[in-house]
Amino acid sequence: MTLLNPKERSQRGERLQSELRSSGIAEPNTLLQAAWRDYLYAEIWSRPDLDRRSRYFISMSGAACEGGRSDVLDGYVRGALKLGEIALAELREAALHLALYGGWSQGMALDAAVTRVATELGLPPASFRPLRENPWDPQRRTEEGAAKFVSVMTLPAPKPVSPYLGDGILNFVFGEMWLRPELDQRARRWITLVGVAHSSSSTPIRSHIYAAMASGDATPAEMQEFVLQFAVHGGWPKGSVIQSVVFEMSKRIADGLPFEN
Amino acid sequence: MTLLNPKERSQRGERLQSELRSSGIAEPNTLLQAAWRDYLYAEIWSRPDLDRRSRYFISMSGAACEGGRSDVLDGYVRGALKLGEIALAELREAALHLALYGGWSQGMALDAAVTRVATELGLPPASFRPLRENPWDPQRRTEEGAAKFVSVMTLPAPKPVSPYLGDGILNFVFGEMWLRPELDQRARRWITLVGVAHSSSSTPIRSHIYAAMASGDATPAEMQEFVLQFAVHGGWPKGSVIQSVVFEMSKRIADGLPFEN
Amino acid sequence: MTLLNPKERSQRGERLQSELRSSGIAEPNTLLQAAWRDYLYAEIWSRPDLDRRSRYFISMSGAACEGGRSDVLDGYVRGALKLGEIALAELREAALHLALYGGWSQGMALDAAVTRVATELGLPPASFRPLRENPWDPQRRTEEGAAKFVSVMTLPAPKPVSPYLGDGILNFVFGEMWLRPELDQRARRWITLVGVAHSSSSTPIRSHIYAAMASGDATPAEMQEFVLQFAVHGGWPKGSVIQSVVFEMSKRIADGLPFEN
Repeated sequence: MTLLNPKERSQRGERLQSELRSSGIAEPNTLLQAAWRDYLYAEIWSRPDLDRRSRYFISMSGAACEGGRSDVLDGYVRGALKLGEIALAELREAALHLALYGGWSQGMALDAAVTRVATELGLPPASFRPLRENPWDPQRRTEEGAAKFVSVMTLPAPKPVSPYLGDGILNFVFGEMWLRPELDQRARRWITLVGVAHSSSSTPIRSHIYAAMASGDATPAEMQEFVLQFAVHGGWPKGSVIQSVVFEMSKRIADGLPFEN
Repeated sequence: MTLLNPKERSQRGERLQSELRSSGIAEPNTLLQAAWRDYLYAEIWSRPDLDRRSRYFISMSGAACEGGRSDVLDGYVRGALKLGEIALAELREAALHLALYGGWSQGMALDAAVTRVATELGLPPASFRPLRENPWDPQRRTEEGAAKFVSVMTLPAPKPVSPYLGDGILNFVFGEMWLRPELDQRARRWITLVGVAHSSSSTPIRSHIYAAMASGDATPAEMQEFVLQFAVHGGWPKGSVIQSVVFEMSKRIADGLPFEN
Repeated sequence: MTLLNPKERSQRGERLQSELRSSGIAEPNTLLQAAWRDYLYAEIWSRPDLDRRSRYFISMSGAACEGGRSDVLDGYVRGALKLGEIALAELREAALHLALYGGWSQGMALDAAVTRVATELGLPPASFRPLRENPWDPQRRTEEGAAKFVSVMTLPAPKPVSPYLGDGILNFVFGEMWLRPELDQRARRWITLVGVAHSSSSTPIRSHIYAAMASGDATPAEMQEFVLQFAVHGGWPKGSVIQSVVFEMSKRIADGLPFEN
């Protein structure tokens, strides 16, 4: 029987916290701060089966959705930038993506953190490509959105029979945002999954967890890591909900079954 | 085939953003800020079928529920005041109403925004009528709350068999707040609908969406606009939930059917 | 027929607000502030059937989960400390517990409020016991977590078949946090119940409300007070959800029935 050592755990947490947030080492002043180091960094961020870039997207989206505290967000953004895991332009795309799935103000919280950290690091402002550069045919825009919906959701697209479904889902969410190549689809998945898990909305939780795996963007093992990484910021109750759905949808996909709500 | 023009879209967004927030024009520094102008203002606020006063109540309630950021809230409050869409005293009533349906701190976020903007504009503090001015019979208060519940919810009132149902729902929510004439019932509806959509609570979402239409306070077409306007601040996943319920309840009402949970 | 008097209500609210927040008396400037005094303090905090210590845990957890505003939180923390209802070390444990059930940033909001108030009152920093002091056998840790799960949830423990269930629920949530003796189980219940009610997650809401009563930590009458006290900060829609579950689970327990989802 090999015993594990509390001091070794704290040291591992301290090292990972400092590295991943690109910050100096600060002795915890409260129980909560000690648990942040000894549990979140020592025991979660040290886990295998999910890459750091993905964990960053999950963590910063979760922190933006749940309170948007700068003392949590800025460290993730700084670490991701300094370790080269996420580029500045990608972080700007991530903020817009999160605005859609987590709520506009949550995207603003992330965008503001990116601005703060970029200023702190002396980075030049990233130029960005606007939502649309060339004139467009509105009918074609809706069709492109529907095609992207099918590819992302692995489900039939809705008809544009309401403002939300037409001007919202097809024209903007899938007809503009998901089509932007400046951030890869896997990164958009993690942000999306955090947004839907945060929302406590049953059908989107079910469809997006299924689609993440059915599309090949995430493996079942990665989705299991997602649940734990998300739960830290979203809280254990919301984690419990997505845990059940990940089990169920992993089985459906292993059995070759289509999505069922 | 008429092509739409990205420059025209940005200009329309810029104009509406500046007008509706009563602010100067600021060039967007980030992708998110550009999308705020080109999507939210150019494509949502320019839509027909729902008046600006209603869109203001939905947007400020949504922003207060989702993060309560002053950089979002203050512009809505300033615009609504300066354009004469919502009076100062109505904004104070809206903050109290939101405190009930979105959570007390969310109401405080709106109330604080109103105070900031009123100070900025040099408006004198609005006097207000207290919750109750005259001595009351507790039994009568509960009965008045029950009668108001029936009228607002188009459903039978609950019995006061618990603290929440008695001292909460009947005595305060319906027995005091909904009875206040200082803010009209249609305005209270939008605030209420934002609160219930934000809460991700299935039964209140269903009953309030039904009641909004059954009472005549909102038409089905207006409710469809509500879904999109809400989704910006509440996020697309919560928007998806209310979209389904709006379809279902619109059909029930068209078919003359009573509420069913 | 005895009539109740609005002036008497305001005076009672003023007295309780001042006492419970350990603050001076401030005349309300807005309708919302007047309702805070006349409803929350005069009519809810004055109710019987639930002790003040419990109401403090519910209120500060609710305020931390819903916005984390310092102007709400600090008064509860100051009052609880000055009236001797909750000790400083217990507040630090409460912040960690809330971080788990309400989300990490929500725990940080409470922890930050405790730091602000402790500094204001000139209290020395509380020392704290780390998560683990002695070397441990990982297998034994999981088993201890499972045993604690059974005792807290009054349900069979899950198997550690995923990161969330193993390293999350069994190793940390029940294998470390619930085992800490520095905060009693009843206090942890209220914090937990606020977290699950805030999350809008159906299964955790149902299982935790059942377990709170089945374990003997809270009586059905106390749970009814919980619903009202929570609704102030969580909003009436989330209150409506837990109201239904409290009725249902109270009946199951009265009938001697096991938990059913």
